[in-house]
Amino acid sequence: MTAVRVVAFGGGHGLSASLRALRRCAPELDLDLTAVVTVGDDGGSSGRLRAERGGLPPGDLRQALVALAGDHPATQRSAGLFQHRFAAVPPPTIGDREAAIAGRLTGHAVGNLMLCGLMELLGDPVAALEHAGAMLGTVGRVLPMSCEPVGIEARVRGVNPARPAEVGIVSGQHQVAITTGRVESLRLDPQAPAACPEALAAIGAADWLLFGPGSWYTSVLPHLLVPELAAAIVASPARRLVTLNLAAEKETFGLSVADHLAELRWYLPTLRVDCVLGDVKAVGDPDPVERAAESLGARLILAPVAVNDGTPCHDSAALAAALVPVLGAAR
Amino acid sequence: MTAVRVVAFGGGHGLSASLRALRRCAPELDLDLTAVVTVGDDGGSSGRLRAERGGLPPGDLRQALVALAGDHPATQRSAGLFQHRFAAVPPPTIGDREAAIAGRLTGHAVGNLMLCGLMELLGDPVAALEHAGAMLGTVGRVLPMSCEPVGIEARVRGVNPARPAEVGIVSGQHQVAITTGRVESLRLDPQAPAACPEALAAIGAADWLLFGPGSWYTSVLPHLLVPELAAAIVASPARRLVTLNLAAEKETFGLSVADHLAELRWYLPTLRVDCVLGDVKAVGDPDPVERAAESLGARLILAPVAVNDGTPCHDSAALAAALVPVLGAAR
Repeated sequence: MTAVRVVAFGGGHGLSASLRALRRCAPELDLDLTAVVTVGDDGGSSGRLRAERGGLPPGDLRQALVALAGDHPATQRSAGLFQHRFAAVPPPTIGDREAAIAGRLTGHAVGNLMLCGLMELLGDPVAALEHAGAMLGTVGRVLPMSCEPVGIEARVRGVNPARPAEVGIVSGQHQVAITTGRVESLRLDPQAPAACPEALAAIGAADWLLFGPGSWYTSVLPHLLVPELAAAIVASPARRLVTLNLAAEKETFGLSVADHLAELRWYLPTLRVDCVLGDVKAVGDPDPVERAAESLGARLILAPVAVNDGTPCHDSAALAAALVPVLGAAR
Repeated sequence: MTAVRVVAFGGGHGLSASLRALRRCAPELDLDLTAVVTVGDDGGSSGRLRAERGGLPPGDLRQALVALAGDHPATQRSAGLFQHRFAAVPPPTIGDREAAIAGRLTGHAVGNLMLCGLMELLGDPVAALEHAGAMLGTVGRVLPMSCEPVGIEARVRGVNPARPAEVGIVSGQHQVAITTGRVESLRLDPQAPAACPEALAAIGAADWLLFGPGSWYTSVLPHLLVPELAAAIVASPARRLVTLNLAAEKETFGLSVADHLAELRWYLPTLRVDCVLGDVKAVGDPDPVERAAESLGARLILAPVAVNDGTPCHDSAALAAALVPVLGAAR
């Protein structure tokens, strides 16, 4: 059996859902799995570390590593350590000095601090992620889309809800992700960051390139805005699959499912897609989605891939069951 | 061959030197090695974490783990991560918020943050150290002397150099370690902390108990001040070895080599010792040291155990060479 080489693009929870499903397919399909992760986060623990230390924001990288962590109790416990977030503690009452420094670690995930330390120690994010992957016994590897952090900027209509027709610029991934206006245009800062060379090599050697699910503007589209990645994606002999989201988020409020596909085409007009995978219920009327998929060259595959409790989360077993016949057919 | 069960007491650099030497003996003697580490540190990264988060100060525990880390390149790289200390970085110039938070991680060792997170995650320092040991592939295990942090207080003569005859109280391990006065009396706060149960069990089952080298007041003597540990040490069927320091430190300035042994006897009058191991050059005139050793019931063993460059550091190969015949003779 030949290994199926899969590259999954994304960031945050969407990519984690995809990776958890792919892990389940890994033994059956002999997957050779690479996650290529956005590096635009500027919120929360990652944003604080990026501002303080200047390296890549580690949170999305950590989430991807943990999603791929091995099943052994020891590696699962290490995954628990990576995910452990320092909770707020009441400041000790033994002096002003203590009160003044209380809360410095609050909100940081331990794995973010470890990745930050590894990147500084080794001087190379790819080597740092390789070592973190070894610590977690990951199935597959995690790469950053660029070895330098990027900014995300959006032109947003109605950024101020009181003046819905007015257009403003929203800067920073976190602000874009929580905007209640409509994103009209997206760009990176710098506009053409260098791609991670190992990611380019993985794309060139891949059998499948996977996009989504995830925050469309802040986790899925950024990869297409890195010129070298976009060129490698278009040039790759791999087949391409897009997994649709289950619900709109703040940043995509008002965007239909078909609009999501149109956005991919707008930002990378030469992108051709083979399959679009959507949840039966979340897609609703399939006709407009089918037409949007066809305009990318893709067929629409509908399957029940959401969890049963009504939350907009992919069920990793169901997503794996939908992916196996698709990815396996490439061989 | 029966395993030789060794418990080494200490903290900081002295214990690390001892553990690095013991690691070298481990294959030859089939050592079953346990380090029991002080938990009084209140300076530096450990002191900040203890003040901010309230758990055990992790620095001495980390040093002991790293000294025992496995030889495999992956575990050595993880040991490098544990030891990596966040250096000061110039604050980014993108805004006041960033400037305000710059430096929060500066000075922390990554392993201290990992141990702090593991202790919070697992709710049990012993389980946390066991997992950290597994991550580092340690030869042997590391235990805290108590599962609660302790304070160290000293009555010091000449705490103010301008008034050398005056006696004052110095609080906190860090302040005791850097005092330029003469320590006249030492106690813990609380005065009778509970001992770590696993440490008590290891002492009861040991073939050898090892004390020193290390900062006498802040790393070697504190164990004897924990009543349950003192009782277990006295009751243990194990033989006991004291390794002498190579030079006086600030906290022991003016204390002769023989005085160091007298201090052990003062704080635990029922302590009997089998061997005292000293460096030929550092001991100098052996007569007073021999007499002090005899008053503990011990014979003095002299060997060249210091590094050759004149710094007061134990050479781990030389220390191992001196320890092997002594520890091996217990069988």
